[in-house]
Amino acid sequence: MKLYKELSPSLRTIMTPGPVEVDPRVLRAMSYPILGQFDPEFTELMNETMEMLREVFQTNNQWAFPVDGTSRSGIEAVLVSVIEPGDKVLVPIYGRFGHLLVEISERCGAEVVMLERDWGTVFEPQEIVDAIRREKPNIVAMVHGETSTGCIQPFDGIGAACREADALLVVDAVATIGGVPVMTDAWQLDAVIGGTQKCLSVPSGMSPITYNERVEAKVLRRKTIERGLREQGAEVSGRKPVASNYFDLGMLQDYWSPKRLNHHTEATSMLYALREGLRLVLQEGLEERFKRHKRHEAALVAGLETMGLKLYGDPDCKLPVVTCILIPEGLDGEAVRSMLLNTFGIEIASSFGPLKGQIWRIGTMGFSCNQKNVLHVLGALEAVLLWHGADVNAGKALQAALRQYAHAEEKQPC
Amino acid sequence: MKLYKELSPSLRTIMTPGPVEVDPRVLRAMSYPILGQFDPEFTELMNETMEMLREVFQTNNQWAFPVDGTSRSGIEAVLVSVIEPGDKVLVPIYGRFGHLLVEISERCGAEVVMLERDWGTVFEPQEIVDAIRREKPNIVAMVHGETSTGCIQPFDGIGAACREADALLVVDAVATIGGVPVMTDAWQLDAVIGGTQKCLSVPSGMSPITYNERVEAKVLRRKTIERGLREQGAEVSGRKPVASNYFDLGMLQDYWSPKRLNHHTEATSMLYALREGLRLVLQEGLEERFKRHKRHEAALVAGLETMGLKLYGDPDCKLPVVTCILIPEGLDGEAVRSMLLNTFGIEIASSFGPLKGQIWRIGTMGFSCNQKNVLHVLGALEAVLLWHGADVNAGKALQAALRQYAHAEEKQPC
Repeated sequence: MKLYKELSPSLRTIMTPGPVEVDPRVLRAMSYPILGQFDPEFTELMNETMEMLREVFQTNNQWAFPVDGTSRSGIEAVLVSVIEPGDKVLVPIYGRFGHLLVEISERCGAEVVMLERDWGTVFEPQEIVDAIRREKPNIVAMVHGETSTGCIQPFDGIGAACREADALLVVDAVATIGGVPVMTDAWQLDAVIGGTQKCLSVPSGMSPITYNERVEAKVLRRKTIERGLREQGAEVSGRKPVASNYFDLGMLQDYWSPKRLNHHTEATSMLYALREGLRLVLQEGLEERFKRHKRHEAALVAGLETMGLKLYGDPDCKLPVVTCILIPEGLDGEAVRSMLLNTFGIEIASSFGPLKGQIWRIGTMGFSCNQKNVLHVLGALEAVLLWHGADVNAGKALQAALRQYAHAEEKQPC
Repeated sequence: MKLYKELSPSLRTIMTPGPVEVDPRVLRAMSYPILGQFDPEFTELMNETMEMLREVFQTNNQWAFPVDGTSRSGIEAVLVSVIEPGDKVLVPIYGRFGHLLVEISERCGAEVVMLERDWGTVFEPQEIVDAIRREKPNIVAMVHGETSTGCIQPFDGIGAACREADALLVVDAVATIGGVPVMTDAWQLDAVIGGTQKCLSVPSGMSPITYNERVEAKVLRRKTIERGLREQGAEVSGRKPVASNYFDLGMLQDYWSPKRLNHHTEATSMLYALREGLRLVLQEGLEERFKRHKRHEAALVAGLETMGLKLYGDPDCKLPVVTCILIPEGLDGEAVRSMLLNTFGIEIASSFGPLKGQIWRIGTMGFSCNQKNVLHVLGALEAVLLWHGADVNAGKALQAALRQYAHAEEKQPC
């Protein structure tokens, strides 16, 4: 019999756009013995998690809970529950994750209308408003922060246009929640999907979502009670149910409501992790947290630019938590990444599709977003680039970052 | 701002049919700092997990990996990937989870043929073989161990009949994997779904699955590469894709293959937990583990029957890891469960649908399946029943269980 070694993962400095390093307090939460799913102590933890999610999503929505799966499980849960086959879904695309929204919507039977922008830019909100008025979609699905390109989409007027057109606005905020303001109610977002493994700094495996009464009304029209759980005489809806059982928001909300109608078995240790992660976010304070992300982004960017590297994408729509760098011509981007990982223990990311081999991506997210990490990555990157014979300004990047930090401290205490 | 307390869950003796107590070594594994999803150290852990899953599923299948979600996510992933709309699916039902297979299959667009038995019994395998020959289904989906009724279904001849009829045999082994033999290859099961939170004693949140080339062939016919990941010139399949992106086995197997084609972000800490849980299963040895489950079941049953309680269900098909007890007439089953939990810190389960209020269910699964727990639950149950005025034989149950353990030790060392 093969003997498997004890688990002993190396310690890494993870500077990708997710998954990122996890706060030790969150790691510790996962090591606590578990409770049963209907234990009142556990359901109280579920309720607290819902309360905290409402704060983080900046919403008064009743429904705010995690879907048990990775981030795209939350996206699919929302889309499969709100899209009825034949619905028209408008998807503005400016990177890989816009395409994912198209892909999932198509699988849900939607008629998809795409609006495309060059990667590295975002839409003028008015373009989207015009498209909503023109296309009269049932649903508008869009990405808030595109990790594939490091761009962030403003929402001015889009929520109002959706209300006017009676369309539901579904927003993928996987990359932004907890790092950049996501104002569910103020922006009139009908459903928002967050991710755990990015700015919340909880391991991948849950996807927090929130949605309002407009979404709930559509979900309830298709609601059923599961076979094998129905008591005698229970009514059965005549409508075609949601195409997924696992992702049926009608069933999920019954499980998360005081009814606690059995659906899945809640992922206990991940729930512990999410609750602890959210607790730490609220303890830091949302505004403080957003400022922290901006502060470290500024230092990173100062260092990279001073080194002589060029950033990718339109600076006017730069996502504060992801910085994309054009790989200097003639350099093997993957060799640089490998040396960073194997020699310095630092992970940065490449990108997808048309950007594969063109850019590196550095995340400054959640627990990974700190001065030690930013300085470490700048110093290591400079050394690795010099090692590979790249033409960079030696010895300048860390000085620029340090100046940036000193300047930020003058303006506001850490 | 509301201050949320530090996480501090009470220690419970969890004797439900899942989730059950988690081995402290598994809890510890979840507290390790994470690795990035494409870090070679992490992908090596993924590969080891696949190897260990093959052993636990007793298969030589190439594909054996977890789906990132709770147990029913694995069931849905298999069904949505193999069922093409209009396919005929035969579902033999003898409890709640058979109904779940119907429910999911219907949502996948299947024409479902149900075969029903009274709850508390199982099918003669020949009945199912006859139905396969008669109905000529594309898929047969059935439950191996029904936690709702505590019954286990034998498979003699069913796999062969499926091959003969060119049907795929999909088996829900969520409750049995790691506690009772599940012989994927020997029984000619085409796809098997396991659960983590039962006999594997890993927290809920992953669902290990395995499937063979017959299933893969059907999956590959519908395969696509995700929009936004396709490189220029990549081919696009003309067939209707699987209705789910998250659960598309074609994409999942690319992610778990050496290609590592990005799909979701693997749930790192849950993967650590699963790998450690599997390692402990293999360290104990499958045969030893199955014997252990039988040994503690025998002691539990001896204690319950000596107390004067009646078991529910046909004893010939009793599932070794779940014991169902008829609630004595005139007793409030929920009051007994509450007192067990609140006063003794022990959780046992009720049941679903027609059995709600009729039976209690006690699990003897994985890490929870040990002498300390069995003796604790018997002593506490007797005290709580006496407290509620039930007519039970006082002082006998623990003696019977102790005699059973002594007898088992004579036959085989612990």
